[in-house]
Amino acid sequence: MSEVRVFAPGSVSNIGCGYDVFGMALEGPGDVVTARLVEDGGEGVFSVSVSGDGGRVPTDPARNCAAVAAQAVLDRVGAGRGGRVGVALDVRKGLPLAAGLGGSAASAAAGAVAADALLGGGLDQTTLLECVVAGERQGSGASHIDNAAPALAGGFVLVPPGKPLRIVRLPTPVDFVAAVVRPHLEVETAKARALLGEAIALSAGIRQWGNTAGLVAGLYQEDWELLGRCIDDAVAEPVRARLVPGLEEAKRRALAAGAVGAGLSGSGPSVFAICRGRSAAREAARAIADAFRSEAGVDADVIVSPPSPTGARVLGTSASTRAATAGTGGSVGG
Amino acid sequence: MSEVRVFAPGSVSNIGCGYDVFGMALEGPGDVVTARLVEDGGEGVFSVSVSGDGGRVPTDPARNCAAVAAQAVLDRVGAGRGGRVGVALDVRKGLPLAAGLGGSAASAAAGAVAADALLGGGLDQTTLLECVVAGERQGSGASHIDNAAPALAGGFVLVPPGKPLRIVRLPTPVDFVAAVVRPHLEVETAKARALLGEAIALSAGIRQWGNTAGLVAGLYQEDWELLGRCIDDAVAEPVRARLVPGLEEAKRRALAAGAVGAGLSGSGPSVFAICRGRSAAREAARAIADAFRSEAGVDADVIVSPPSPTGARVLGTSASTRAATAGTGGSVGG
Repeated sequence: MSEVRVFAPGSVSNIGCGYDVFGMALEGPGDVVTARLVEDGGEGVFSVSVSGDGGRVPTDPARNCAAVAAQAVLDRVGAGRGGRVGVALDVRKGLPLAAGLGGSAASAAAGAVAADALLGGGLDQTTLLECVVAGERQGSGASHIDNAAPALAGGFVLVPPGKPLRIVRLPTPVDFVAAVVRPHLEVETAKARALLGEAIALSAGIRQWGNTAGLVAGLYQEDWELLGRCIDDAVAEPVRARLVPGLEEAKRRALAAGAVGAGLSGSGPSVFAICRGRSAAREAARAIADAFRSEAGVDADVIVSPPSPTGARVLGTSASTRAATAGTGGSVGG
Repeated sequence: MSEVRVFAPGSVSNIGCGYDVFGMALEGPGDVVTARLVEDGGEGVFSVSVSGDGGRVPTDPARNCAAVAAQAVLDRVGAGRGGRVGVALDVRKGLPLAAGLGGSAASAAAGAVAADALLGGGLDQTTLLECVVAGERQGSGASHIDNAAPALAGGFVLVPPGKPLRIVRLPTPVDFVAAVVRPHLEVETAKARALLGEAIALSAGIRQWGNTAGLVAGLYQEDWELLGRCIDDAVAEPVRARLVPGLEEAKRRALAAGAVGAGLSGSGPSVFAICRGRSAAREAARAIADAFRSEAGVDADVIVSPPSPTGARVLGTSASTRAATAGTGGSVGG
């Protein structure tokens, strides 16, 4: 094939306690990356076009998430050097920027999977995840494996420490549904991370690792009391809350509307609430959006979604006349 | 009844990553507390005798773990004030002191359960756990719920943050066996805790809460790769290691002998290794004991045990002639 179109979903990271370790893929909006083999057009990922971003996403291949991730794939399959393979990317942003919905990770995951499919690389998940992380680092100044992993693999996932990288898919109760509300505010991830500093209180750490353990146990046991108790961030949210006017009221109203737990999605400003069933999630979403309207004077968009079982996926392929793939090396599909 | 004899097991806390949140009850040695109703002898828990401790455990009821825990039970069932109930305790220490095997928690758990059985209190697990924690605090200068919970309830347990206190029993693979080796060294828990300070690096925290989440997932999924990866302490062991000569070599040899993971039991000096099956655990125990002999020049005792399914339990009751319980109030058994 000479052209591949790949979708990757948005995601909620942290889920309360799991800073840098938990993430959940969402149904609904996502980014779409089309990768095209171009003969004699350039070397590696040489061209990027972006739409749906209001002109804010860089099109320089060295600074674009999808392109860096795709180039990492090219490097690993041994293509794209010496002028043998040129790849052009088209990135269509379906996810908002700086929203805390894993937009950079989605672009990177779509870019990596598109490049892998285009080149017939057949890279394993661990290698693809390394490529996604490399790309995502471009977008937000740090690697957020808690968005990269669900964007790539789907589901509710844990990324445990240690090498090689692993994605551990966790089960969720059948009525586990997230309400995700994005107020029309922006928070720069890098700024939100900088607020955290390098050290935390031991007591906060103990709460956090008790909570992550309890959240996993709650998922396996479908123990909603435990889930609610453990969806609680002792580390990141307390210092980030002041970047998101209306957050406390939004959480309060979500819980009052019956949500099991609520918090910032990633570094915000989006807010998630975990609920039992879609109808409860719709209630919570409405309550959160109302809070942002009354407390911060802003409108908000709403997603109601269980963990999306699929992550980055090929939407379509074609053999474009613009790409002549003969002679591009053994690892490249025709 | 007028006399109750209760056993409570030793335990391994932390299990690598779960400082203050994970604990596992052991088969084998434990402490035994006999509680006796004594008419006109005194008020509340007024007398304590201790054996098996080399004279080192305080017999002052206000400073003895078992007595403080038992008194907490008396307080909660509304007995033991106003001279209505007098209780004498006999504590037989089967667990070594300052070993990192939850000896204070075992005494406290046995004391609490003995008092509850003696008085017919029928306290629920949460209330009993509060009493055990109150007692255990006497023994080590801090409350170690990660020993108190398994000593009381048995099994491999998680104590999640939040109120009310809860003990979450986690499943373990059928061949999940601990090798626990106590070198003939002592570490004061309070001193080991003081080394930790009040703050930790954020990066260490992230490792720790990824590990606790992964360890729980590994237990549910019987995923030994995940268990081995996550039995790793980023927070406490690095600073405590210097209190235990030979630790690094002991861990190295345990892993070389096939252990899945290894680390300090609680604040040490005991070392645990998690193994697949009893025979592997015996190998690991031997390797650890050898390391302490060659590196620190000390002998060591060995326990090989899966999680003990039972925690504190009544061994026997009797109606002693020394105790006339009539008129001690409605909540007191005859």
